[in-house]
Amino acid sequence: MTDTSTEAFTPIHDPSTRGFASDNYAGIHPEVLAAIVAANGGHQVAYGEDVYTARLTEVLTEVFGRQAMVYPVFNGTGANVLALQAATPRWASVLTTSSAHIHVDEAAAPERVGGFKVNVIDTPDGKLTPQLIEAYPARVEDEHFAQIGVVSITNSTEVGTVYTGAEIRAIADLVHERGWVLHLDGSRLSNAAAALGVGLRELTTDAGVDILSLGGTKAGAMLAEAVVVLSPDRVAGATFLRKQSMQLASKMRFVSAQLLALFEGDLWRRNAEHANGMARRLADAVADIDGVRLVTEVEANAVFPILPREVSERLMQRFRFYFWDESTGQVRWMCAWDTTESDVDAFAAAVRAELAAP
Amino acid sequence: MTDTSTEAFTPIHDPSTRGFASDNYAGIHPEVLAAIVAANGGHQVAYGEDVYTARLTEVLTEVFGRQAMVYPVFNGTGANVLALQAATPRWASVLTTSSAHIHVDEAAAPERVGGFKVNVIDTPDGKLTPQLIEAYPARVEDEHFAQIGVVSITNSTEVGTVYTGAEIRAIADLVHERGWVLHLDGSRLSNAAAALGVGLRELTTDAGVDILSLGGTKAGAMLAEAVVVLSPDRVAGATFLRKQSMQLASKMRFVSAQLLALFEGDLWRRNAEHANGMARRLADAVADIDGVRLVTEVEANAVFPILPREVSERLMQRFRFYFWDESTGQVRWMCAWDTTESDVDAFAAAVRAELAAP
Amino acid sequence: MTDTSTEAFTPIHDPSTRGFASDNYAGIHPEVLAAIVAANGGHQVAYGEDVYTARLTEVLTEVFGRQAMVYPVFNGTGANVLALQAATPRWASVLTTSSAHIHVDEAAAPERVGGFKVNVIDTPDGKLTPQLIEAYPARVEDEHFAQIGVVSITNSTEVGTVYTGAEIRAIADLVHERGWVLHLDGSRLSNAAAALGVGLRELTTDAGVDILSLGGTKAGAMLAEAVVVLSPDRVAGATFLRKQSMQLASKMRFVSAQLLALFEGDLWRRNAEHANGMARRLADAVADIDGVRLVTEVEANAVFPILPREVSERLMQRFRFYFWDESTGQVRWMCAWDTTESDVDAFAAAVRAELAAP
Amino acid sequence: MTDTSTEAFTPIHDPSTRGFASDNYAGIHPEVLAAIVAANGGHQVAYGEDVYTARLTEVLTEVFGRQAMVYPVFNGTGANVLALQAATPRWASVLTTSSAHIHVDEAAAPERVGGFKVNVIDTPDGKLTPQLIEAYPARVEDEHFAQIGVVSITNSTEVGTVYTGAEIRAIADLVHERGWVLHLDGSRLSNAAAALGVGLRELTTDAGVDILSLGGTKAGAMLAEAVVVLSPDRVAGATFLRKQSMQLASKMRFVSAQLLALFEGDLWRRNAEHANGMARRLADAVADIDGVRLVTEVEANAVFPILPREVSERLMQRFRFYFWDESTGQVRWMCAWDTTESDVDAFAAAVRAELAAP
Repeated sequence: MTDTSTEAFTPIHDPSTRGFASDNYAGIHPEVLAAIVAANGGHQVAYGEDVYTARLTEVLTEVFGRQAMVYPVFNGTGANVLALQAATPRWASVLTTSSAHIHVDEAAAPERVGGFKVNVIDTPDGKLTPQLIEAYPARVEDEHFAQIGVVSITNSTEVGTVYTGAEIRAIADLVHERGWVLHLDGSRLSNAAAALGVGLRELTTDAGVDILSLGGTKAGAMLAEAVVVLSPDRVAGATFLRKQSMQLASKMRFVSAQLLALFEGDLWRRNAEHANGMARRLADAVADIDGVRLVTEVEANAVFPILPREVSERLMQRFRFYFWDESTGQVRWMCAWDTTESDVDAFAAAVRAELAAP
Repeated sequence: MTDTSTEAFTPIHDPSTRGFASDNYAGIHPEVLAAIVAANGGHQVAYGEDVYTARLTEVLTEVFGRQAMVYPVFNGTGANVLALQAATPRWASVLTTSSAHIHVDEAAAPERVGGFKVNVIDTPDGKLTPQLIEAYPARVEDEHFAQIGVVSITNSTEVGTVYTGAEIRAIADLVHERGWVLHLDGSRLSNAAAALGVGLRELTTDAGVDILSLGGTKAGAMLAEAVVVLSPDRVAGATFLRKQSMQLASKMRFVSAQLLALFEGDLWRRNAEHANGMARRLADAVADIDGVRLVTEVEANAVFPILPREVSERLMQRFRFYFWDESTGQVRWMCAWDTTESDVDAFAAAVRAELAAP
Repeated sequence: MTDTSTEAFTPIHDPSTRGFASDNYAGIHPEVLAAIVAANGGHQVAYGEDVYTARLTEVLTEVFGRQAMVYPVFNGTGANVLALQAATPRWASVLTTSSAHIHVDEAAAPERVGGFKVNVIDTPDGKLTPQLIEAYPARVEDEHFAQIGVVSITNSTEVGTVYTGAEIRAIADLVHERGWVLHLDGSRLSNAAAALGVGLRELTTDAGVDILSLGGTKAGAMLAEAVVVLSPDRVAGATFLRKQSMQLASKMRFVSAQLLALFEGDLWRRNAEHANGMARRLADAVADIDGVRLVTEVEANAVFPILPREVSERLMQRFRFYFWDESTGQVRWMCAWDTTESDVDAFAAAVRAELAAP
Repeated sequence: MTDTSTEAFTPIHDPSTRGFASDNYAGIHPEVLAAIVAANGGHQVAYGEDVYTARLTEVLTEVFGRQAMVYPVFNGTGANVLALQAATPRWASVLTTSSAHIHVDEAAAPERVGGFKVNVIDTPDGKLTPQLIEAYPARVEDEHFAQIGVVSITNSTEVGTVYTGAEIRAIADLVHERGWVLHLDGSRLSNAAAALGVGLRELTTDAGVDILSLGGTKAGAMLAEAVVVLSPDRVAGATFLRKQSMQLASKMRFVSAQLLALFEGDLWRRNAEHANGMARRLADAVADIDGVRLVTEVEANAVFPILPREVSERLMQRFRFYFWDESTGQVRWMCAWDTTESDVDAFAAAVRAELAAP
């Protein structure tokens, strides 16, 4: 074996700085990193025939039910586009919300890779309902209109709200009645489950979800998501589509090990509860500040307040965060697994100070 | 911050076992792992605006020339399909060898994601030549035939051979004369450069390559490749295509850190020289065994011998490797950065023993 | 030559019945049919190298300008998807209205064949304006959002309104300022030009349109459309894309001959003026009927009134037409080149009688 | 109704000239033209709900069996790509011959529109056999290789040979055993059936073909093909895929009327027998000419002789035909429904004269 003296690399960033821009800005949770380290050494069969991927399947079938099929992938867009393809024939289209990640933040990957038209319904809280779906002109059997084959919901949503299991079940029942399939973008499923104090299964298998994009990266992983097929009868070809969609990792053991670290125990819940709690703490800390308006309920790990644009711009010079809606001045403050109480308190104090400034 | 006691995970695999199936079976080189660890902690801007990606661009422009543009991605198929798309208009097709990874091992990702016809030329040593390209009926300007826009070569090739810089330059000159673009699948570019004792630039920028898939995973990374644009004038839209092709990592710092570990110093070369040396050692050790025929020159980190099928099948029960050509009994023995001399010697001894058995 | 006694086929339909469902329900104008007959006999080079296609190019360059490039195709969806592809790089998306044919009536062909996200703006009269485009969140340079490359407008629009040349020019100026391309779906361009009393060029080349889907079928042809490139500098690969998009006719002379019949003289204008006049006559005839509400101006060959649903349903038993908006009871009455005054008068009388019924 | 004086258009081509370049160079058979004329007048429901399309379905179910489903389309490439898509899930690839039209003459439409990898087998006579298919490394269940879902054969083939029903049945049995689907490109199915003296059904339904591209254009139509689904259980979504693939004619009655003219009676057979007979006559007439070598059997309407390149080039100045293989000097002489005995005799005489020239 070649000489591999592991002189430690020196960080070139400041590991003590955190902001409120995104849970993607956070790093790797130490337990996830430890799992990567443990999975290293020796040879393991590539492309998913390793023991970590096998173990992951065991773990996730315990979580989601024996019928579940597990496909680790690289990122959320990959998970979503793979899931949507596996759930539909090639002529189908998708129905989702106008704030859905697949619609506004995936650079038309669903269209270009999957050939999907993405039909959207406006909904202020980011949540579909049976009523909204029923009102959508789906033009069933009309060959001039790309037939809907799958409904996609996100939980927790892109605007920080949370579907309950019962809300999902009501959607699933309608979706199945129509002969469609229900996809859940669970990039932040952990945050939803933690917010509700339920398990992952209550919000997926038990609620009628057919195929799931299970998030790991925002939950504390380095780079790990999975498509989990919950209704194998309604889904086909995921194995082949994962490779075609360029989401098949050669050294998959390291992707699976990350997901194991999160989902074999309760790390996913600890991280999500923490992030949710930090968002709650932040919302509480700014609730009484004049000039900050909390327009939506803080249910998961994000706060979407409206405040004066120039205040936001001044704050952004010290703390990273994004405008959500340039036209209204709404911003997004996102907490992560590594957000600290003092991060929150310092930020809230800065908001207060900026708004108190003459 | 939540409690994150980093009790070490226990490996569930045997880290002392290695085979000859693939350089993808190997794990993460310790220096790469150290780089991941160093890049952890605190927040960094997601999607590539982090300091590690910025540093990677600096390092790779030093290697490949100031004009180079760097796009870290997840895997080799992703790198290839992104590179081919960025190098061509939407109606173009690809010309490559019949053994090319993009043709036989990417599950039609080039076709489905890129819309490419993959035109192939048979070539026993896996290498194109100007003569072979000239003889190919490209049907220029014939609208019934998908017009070739890019020629793709692999170095080291899928059959373990190596192009010299001069050989690539001759191809590049013809390709450019035709108005096409030259893509290099450099999944094992390190092995080629190490084999020839040259730098990466001599085999790419200096040889007329326009766009490169730069391999990291097989070279010792966990999961890291990059598209490197060498001729920006011939390429367009790589930023947008990376996201559409689902190859944009959110926590990109950890992908870039791996590539930094490999390419900032000489780790890529150390690993490749080692793997190449082990293949050479293995070839030498079996050269005189009756029943083993070395049909191709061992130039990089792979040996492609022909031996009796039943012998291979018995060996496979103890050592992982694959048949390359079922019809001839040709097998592939691949060495990795972590292959040891004793691995090689034990395997060669086993081959000798099997063939000596009555 | 084989015996080809041309015993006349007997029609199996009633050639005396006409309705108000669509200008696609009408047949072939006698002059177009005569042109097909004239182009028959002997051999002509296939795939567009025939004298009729050559002549068509001459004629259309007289109409649209010497720079114009002409690509006859089969149908409107084919023309649109070809035009959009030729006008954009492979990562681009489209911006259009929510009532656009490419959005609601092309079964996701733009998405599946072209890989386009179709971004839409709601606009009650089916017309974009510079203000609407400026207000659209185009997220320029944001890699998470499929970058807009082309704006597509329809004239006359899907809701029967008409853009003037000045209105188009204002859009074109903004579109070009943004570095985008302007596509015109001219499936009913004849009706728009006839409505305004201008030539085809005033509404296209002179107004800044870069690429045009020129309609023939609704204008009196059997089956003939064309993509006309007006700004060759902004467009690429149309020849190759036409074949790839399965829109290249082998016996193209017969497609081109139809377009010649329409556009070499003034048949397009005669047909469009007639159809527009019939729509005007129909609107006038029902204007004073209680229970009929004309919500939009009748500018081309369609009337979009609102009337009681049960009245429409009774009328539909005798006259073919469609609901436009099931929720409001709005219907579409479309006139064609072959609609007669007595057709209109009989229909208007029936509407009046139904609404007068107790 | 507008004035539509049907002053006859004057042809701008010479209707007395014919060559041997392609059956696509021929025009419309008079009976087909008569059928178009008969279908004109009045309104018919667009997009296939007209009486001619209904009648066509009746006629073709008589021909192909009651289970058959009929989808008129515009051209052969459209028919093939639609058929292949309808017969496969979205991850499947195609297996065919290296001379297949879908491989060499459809400009990558199968790849770009259908996302297919087109796997090819070399076969000098253009015909697959069970042996050739069995020998192909299909890598079943290997996710790295695009899984074959459909085998496509052409009859008569691109090189003028003909499959018998028994030959097709043997292929079908193997294909079905593998769980694949059998597609027949029947662009010249008429010529094959006429050559064998059998019906269309013997070569399709009865031989195990699952889905058929039924040719009309080369058989004497102006522009008319159809996808005919023979095994509805193995095929899905053809209605939606036709529209998405931009192959849905609005005034479909005129496409269907052409196919009715060909297939309701025996026009298809008369035309094909005639064209085949002319090819036979041509082959016979040149058989004894020194310098003309007939390398393949003339089974349908094409002759593929090898003769000196310079002789071909001189002949091409007077008679249209193409080189088939530039490297060997092989040319293609194609006869059509309108080729006359005197055309053949004059051409054969010219060949003889050229080769006799000193």
